[in-house]
Amino acid sequence: MGYNTYFADALNRLHQERRYRVFAHLERLAGRYPHAIHHTPDGPRDVVVWCSNDYLGMGQHPKVVGALVETATRMGTGAGGTRNIAGTNHPLVLLEQELADLHGKEAGLVFTSGYVSNDAGISTIAKLLPNCLILSDALNHNSMITGVRNAGTDKAVWRHNDVEHLEDLLKKAGKERCKLIVFEGLYSMDGDVSPIGKICDLAEKYNAMTYIDEVHAVGMYGARGGGQAEQQGEMARIDVIEATLAKAFGCLGGYITGTKELVDAVRSFAPGFIFTTALPPGICAAATAAIKHLKESSWERERQQERAAKLKADLSAAGLPVLPTDTHIVPVMVCDAEKCKQATDILLEEHGIYIQPINYPTVPVGTERLRITPSPYHDDVLMQALTEALIDVWDRLELPRKPYSAIAAE
Amino acid sequence: MGYNTYFADALNRLHQERRYRVFAHLERLAGRYPHAIHHTPDGPRDVVVWCSNDYLGMGQHPKVVGALVETATRMGTGAGGTRNIAGTNHPLVLLEQELADLHGKEAGLVFTSGYVSNDAGISTIAKLLPNCLILSDALNHNSMITGVRNAGTDKAVWRHNDVEHLEDLLKKAGKERCKLIVFEGLYSMDGDVSPIGKICDLAEKYNAMTYIDEVHAVGMYGARGGGQAEQQGEMARIDVIEATLAKAFGCLGGYITGTKELVDAVRSFAPGFIFTTALPPGICAAATAAIKHLKESSWERERQQERAAKLKADLSAAGLPVLPTDTHIVPVMVCDAEKCKQATDILLEEHGIYIQPINYPTVPVGTERLRITPSPYHDDVLMQALTEALIDVWDRLELPRKPYSAIAAE
Repeated sequence: MGYNTYFADALNRLHQERRYRVFAHLERLAGRYPHAIHHTPDGPRDVVVWCSNDYLGMGQHPKVVGALVETATRMGTGAGGTRNIAGTNHPLVLLEQELADLHGKEAGLVFTSGYVSNDAGISTIAKLLPNCLILSDALNHNSMITGVRNAGTDKAVWRHNDVEHLEDLLKKAGKERCKLIVFEGLYSMDGDVSPIGKICDLAEKYNAMTYIDEVHAVGMYGARGGGQAEQQGEMARIDVIEATLAKAFGCLGGYITGTKELVDAVRSFAPGFIFTTALPPGICAAATAAIKHLKESSWERERQQERAAKLKADLSAAGLPVLPTDTHIVPVMVCDAEKCKQATDILLEEHGIYIQPINYPTVPVGTERLRITPSPYHDDVLMQALTEALIDVWDRLELPRKPYSAIAAE
Repeated sequence: MGYNTYFADALNRLHQERRYRVFAHLERLAGRYPHAIHHTPDGPRDVVVWCSNDYLGMGQHPKVVGALVETATRMGTGAGGTRNIAGTNHPLVLLEQELADLHGKEAGLVFTSGYVSNDAGISTIAKLLPNCLILSDALNHNSMITGVRNAGTDKAVWRHNDVEHLEDLLKKAGKERCKLIVFEGLYSMDGDVSPIGKICDLAEKYNAMTYIDEVHAVGMYGARGGGQAEQQGEMARIDVIEATLAKAFGCLGGYITGTKELVDAVRSFAPGFIFTTALPPGICAAATAAIKHLKESSWERERQQERAAKLKADLSAAGLPVLPTDTHIVPVMVCDAEKCKQATDILLEEHGIYIQPINYPTVPVGTERLRITPSPYHDDVLMQALTEALIDVWDRLELPRKPYSAIAAE
């Protein structure tokens, strides 16, 4: 077909811009995380994964796997329909109650992904508010930007984490107008957190609604894993808390929590919720098991923070340019797209270490990086191997072994 | 918060318009399908599900459940990240190969839902074609309409299954312009099929691309379950075949298949694909098991058709207004929103039969219906109980016991 050339041309452009992505073909091994199998043309090879978003290894936790196995055995694999057509399964109802409890909200609503929860959540909420203005942090995730766009309402973007700029925009909009502030608790590329209390102060002062994305924080922050809002003691002040079941909770799906009316309205009006098959009972039960466990166990959270702090210290001591963060995300700055890809290729092929290169458009040009996410299961031996491998890569690619602050100042 | 009244008001409007939906709280029982538990305020009750989209009961098939259980035990519950960030798991790679083979295409790409696959698939393909005109069947599913809208290109809607109208629009657009025809193989509310061969004839004559949604047909039609396109002998002529893993395959997720370049382009450019966690390995393995089984076993397909034909005959013999279809969908026309809801309430509460009322906006006002989907596991005893229950309901609600053709002619 003649049409195929359009697709081939688009791919060629990506290749030319060095933006074509190749996905690593991996096979996870429950009980051996972060070890995995890398399927290569030459056969399977052992690899250590250092960039998973299964941040706490809950995807292999016996309670979580056990809940999936038991529930699938009892109830089968799929939900069998949309929520309306026979799809509202018992474990899903229990999961939504668990999520509401986790965030101290009246109700919860589960979607098939965090992407869909942001798209459907933000757009549906904003559409139900007359003449709504959405105030969106400049570094919000693509799914939130999609939700803002699909709302079709006015929007204003505030400079990342800049509450003075946010206040300017709120003041300009006036107290009377409906306003929805959307932002994240923890930004996953730089690993920085948002000033939630200050944002809530402004929301109250100017009568705005608040919507926080906690996908990179739930399970990992707060006494019960409620996220950055719980950690910062501000959870009760946020109107809508959105997050995911696919990262620290080790499963699949996204959700929002809020008042009974808000959640019921999104349930009733969001096409991306209404016209899609519900999450399988087994996945719901597994997610519930992970949430329950992390409400009570802080070993994973403490160990993850300890591991991240140690890795940052080790890499910094080796002169590698770590971006300073207070969180579990460890960005090591390469600041060159080509070398970033080369670095990860050498790590994978020669050191059996899997880290995904993070290039434009995920991050701005010139801030290309390795984004490392140490889990409770990355032990000292693995950490030493990683540090040595990075030193080797840095030397071979003639990358500067100095603090990122010195590189950024150049 | 003052904002809550906006959501409460929106819900009140739904209540007033009798459009507020209450989801039935069900618990599926693997091995006992179509029996399920209905969780009510008075405790659990046995119920027979007659409206599931797990059309062939594959969600409880031992091969499918077994694949999920075995794979989750070996690989854990979640994928651990987006496809790019450690999420491309081995069973997902095998599933995409299986799907390409099922439809005789070069490549396949899996999404977290059929909704997302249509939204991301249609919008991304159309955006990559310069000045594309999308030609969309008037009865296309909400997810396809969303994809068409998010493409941001010109569109034209052709009257449902009216190939003359489609030809008019194609002729008007001219042979030179890029054109994408999007339609379904089997429309799920009326249970009618599309004239795929004629649409392909026109696509060839006017040099248009074809995109078919086969979510209500895969697994159930064609010698290997390739859908209506396979059934009608036209599979090779279609450019893009989209379908779901969540209905006849009993799991979760959606997909597209097509040329290597087209699939690679959607993979590389669709935000709804790029920025979302991959499907869990266990779900992928379960879906693959279902597809493989239905490629070789035609018992489920034949038995489903036999059951549907028998139910249509039984209901028609009882004077109930069955909408005639050639497929597994058995719509029984109520033609009154209020009575449609009452009918399903009586069925559930007094007869232990669960059928979802289908009202506006899912179908036009005045064509409200019960949409019944007999599976291979609905036996004669269940069928007789259903027929008797429907007669009881029809008499009590004073609904006309005559053919739908007579009602429609009034």
